[in-house]
Amino acid sequence: MSATEKPVRRWAGVIVFIVSALVLLAGSGASAAEDMGPRPHAKGEYDSATSTYTVAAGDDLTTIGRRFGISVADLKALNALTGDRILIGRPLAVSAGAAAAPAQSEQAQADALADPLPSWKDGAPKQAIVDFVRTVTDPSNPGYVSASDRIATFDNDGTLWVEHPMYTQLAFALDRVKALAPQHPEWQTTQPFKAVLDNDMDALADAGKQGLVELVMASHAGMTTTEFEAIVTDWMDKAEHPRFKRPYTSLTYQPMQEVLTYLRANGFKTFIVSGGGVEFMRPMTEQVYGIPPEQVVGSTIETKFEVQDGNPVLMREAKIDFIDDKAGKPVGIHKFIGRRPIAAFGNSGGDREMLEWTGAGDGPRLMMLVFHDDAEREYAYGPAEGLEDTHFGAFPQDLMDEAKAKGWVVISMKDDWTRIFASDE
Amino acid sequence: MSATEKPVRRWAGVIVFIVSALVLLAGSGASAAEDMGPRPHAKGEYDSATSTYTVAAGDDLTTIGRRFGISVADLKALNALTGDRILIGRPLAVSAGAAAAPAQSEQAQADALADPLPSWKDGAPKQAIVDFVRTVTDPSNPGYVSASDRIATFDNDGTLWVEHPMYTQLAFALDRVKALAPQHPEWQTTQPFKAVLDNDMDALADAGKQGLVELVMASHAGMTTTEFEAIVTDWMDKAEHPRFKRPYTSLTYQPMQEVLTYLRANGFKTFIVSGGGVEFMRPMTEQVYGIPPEQVVGSTIETKFEVQDGNPVLMREAKIDFIDDKAGKPVGIHKFIGRRPIAAFGNSGGDREMLEWTGAGDGPRLMMLVFHDDAEREYAYGPAEGLEDTHFGAFPQDLMDEAKAKGWVVISMKDDWTRIFASDE
Repeated sequence: MSATEKPVRRWAGVIVFIVSALVLLAGSGASAAEDMGPRPHAKGEYDSATSTYTVAAGDDLTTIGRRFGISVADLKALNALTGDRILIGRPLAVSAGAAAAPAQSEQAQADALADPLPSWKDGAPKQAIVDFVRTVTDPSNPGYVSASDRIATFDNDGTLWVEHPMYTQLAFALDRVKALAPQHPEWQTTQPFKAVLDNDMDALADAGKQGLVELVMASHAGMTTTEFEAIVTDWMDKAEHPRFKRPYTSLTYQPMQEVLTYLRANGFKTFIVSGGGVEFMRPMTEQVYGIPPEQVVGSTIETKFEVQDGNPVLMREAKIDFIDDKAGKPVGIHKFIGRRPIAAFGNSGGDREMLEWTGAGDGPRLMMLVFHDDAEREYAYGPAEGLEDTHFGAFPQDLMDEAKAKGWVVISMKDDWTRIFASDE
Repeated sequence: MSATEKPVRRWAGVIVFIVSALVLLAGSGASAAEDMGPRPHAKGEYDSATSTYTVAAGDDLTTIGRRFGISVADLKALNALTGDRILIGRPLAVSAGAAAAPAQSEQAQADALADPLPSWKDGAPKQAIVDFVRTVTDPSNPGYVSASDRIATFDNDGTLWVEHPMYTQLAFALDRVKALAPQHPEWQTTQPFKAVLDNDMDALADAGKQGLVELVMASHAGMTTTEFEAIVTDWMDKAEHPRFKRPYTSLTYQPMQEVLTYLRANGFKTFIVSGGGVEFMRPMTEQVYGIPPEQVVGSTIETKFEVQDGNPVLMREAKIDFIDDKAGKPVGIHKFIGRRPIAAFGNSGGDREMLEWTGAGDGPRLMMLVFHDDAEREYAYGPAEGLEDTHFGAFPQDLMDEAKAKGWVVISMKDDWTRIFASDE
């Protein structure tokens, strides 16, 4: 991996674009902002007539978002911010219904009017997204789809955020297993736990995805759901990615964030459909992706309702309830969402059935796969196209062949994205 | 209400309906209407500048709702309609963002301004709802709850619609079992199937709720999810309630419909959490309650992804996956919604744990139970308060005692509701 260990570029300048115009046009979330009152830090002035907030000293997007009940992702989209920087004393739109708030940069406004997906190079994948959205939102087009049926599903690991050198939840699980090991002497001799305690990554990888899910599930049990959420939130705040030396939540793919925002601006409801544990993702998805907990579908362990000292709790049991991967993804989509998506995004063999299920519906469909072929800016793995095989998020050649045969769009991270992370120049 | 009628009337001409104002303030769905093009019947003119639709001959609320992707319940709330009657040639607001559409009836406007819950008599239950909503939506109140945490859950059978003389899904199951019996000779000798084929309602009732769920699940399996949805939709269109001689979908409780609308207008996200089968409810909940499929939590049978002749399908297997009843309700809420409700509505022992779980959270909470004590307009059953015991939706005395001890609000259908169904005068 040393070849890929380039210094991570820090802050990008504030480049702005007008997704907010699209949000206003589409009307999805064209609501007046609701001021939830000053929260820690976000103590600036709010003008309800224009739904704009004036940035005060000490503010950041998170605290402003909390005050107005809007995710950081949507706040950035609304104000055409590509980074996290905001300027003190400048107005910020905090509602899609805001009267055209003065932009953070007029040049960027102009750029964005031309382009809702500024981190995508011109090319077939970008064109496929724009064409699809135009088709399904144009009432005069035979492919028009009513807003309530505009369901889009996204795999998480490797599709929305980094999954190498290992799934983020696995990194969390390793830390948890080590912390819990003294209470589980049997783990010293049982795989995949032994591998974790021995720091034997090869043995761990050999356990396969099923073994990893078991590890993750088992290491997270024996506590209430409330306790688990606090543990995850705490870890997510403190943990750092080993290569990029930043929080995992900052390692989401900016081009995919733009797709999420663009789809929502066009009336879509966006869902995560991941093999990962649903309770690992939910504490962060609203803040990071603008996706609320009830729109996160994932693997689950069983929970049990108990009354402890008069207090009702849900205990997490060391028993797998559902694995939302491969053929489980259409099952999970049907169970949790109850409608077939018209667009689905994935990046590995685990997403094949989700794309097949999505593609089998009537009318216009968009199926896309992110192909990790950019070792310099992120990672490169296959085994498709002769890239290195991998234990995490493998993209087999037969998936590539199926994509070509069925007209699924394969995204080359290297060729199709001008940048990977929001922090890239 | 007579004391407030006069001043209210004075303002009726100049103030927009309270519900639409609340919708705008709360921002839940304050979108511009999207015209999905003329649909059967609804062929009138639409003015996109004001988001109003002019009622044409042959229109009804259902067809208009379909054209604009809005539920009948929301359409009625938006236009302050208490019944289903609409006037040809009059404008109808079809979007919460509509510029103050002229009212269908000034009296209705006035009523709505004075009262978001017109089918509720003044009294403790109605006051509890209004007080709760005011508290959680007032930013200056210490009990304020941000919009994203305003989750409300509703049991379905007996809470939102009629559950006697038997659960609606059971009526459906009986018809299905009879239709499928030739393919299942073993049902002739196995309970609860034998009871159905013998029309032995006592034996059927003796099978208990678990037996009923099994019956329902088993009788619905062996087909694709798409086929099942078509069967349910067809049955729902044709079936009639044995006493009221009307479609089941018209037997929802108007006072509860008003609560759903009132909560959504105040930024709540409303969910059904029912012991009933999720795939039995989803085909109708959006149209009937304004609740989309992904906000319906219920019991599930297992489905399996298969590719048949190159076509991916989900096969329904005769195996119970999850029973969303009693202690299963908090489990289902956590699994599907991922957040604890702040308000929960039920009517039987099956809802006890949902209310306990809801009540155990911090901050203001609203727990309510519908008590069926109105044999004349609907049904009367307990066994609480000495009413007749029942196999469907029993409300035991210890639930009544727990409600009193914990401050849960019990709604008397007889004393607290001015009418039961929308069709009642």
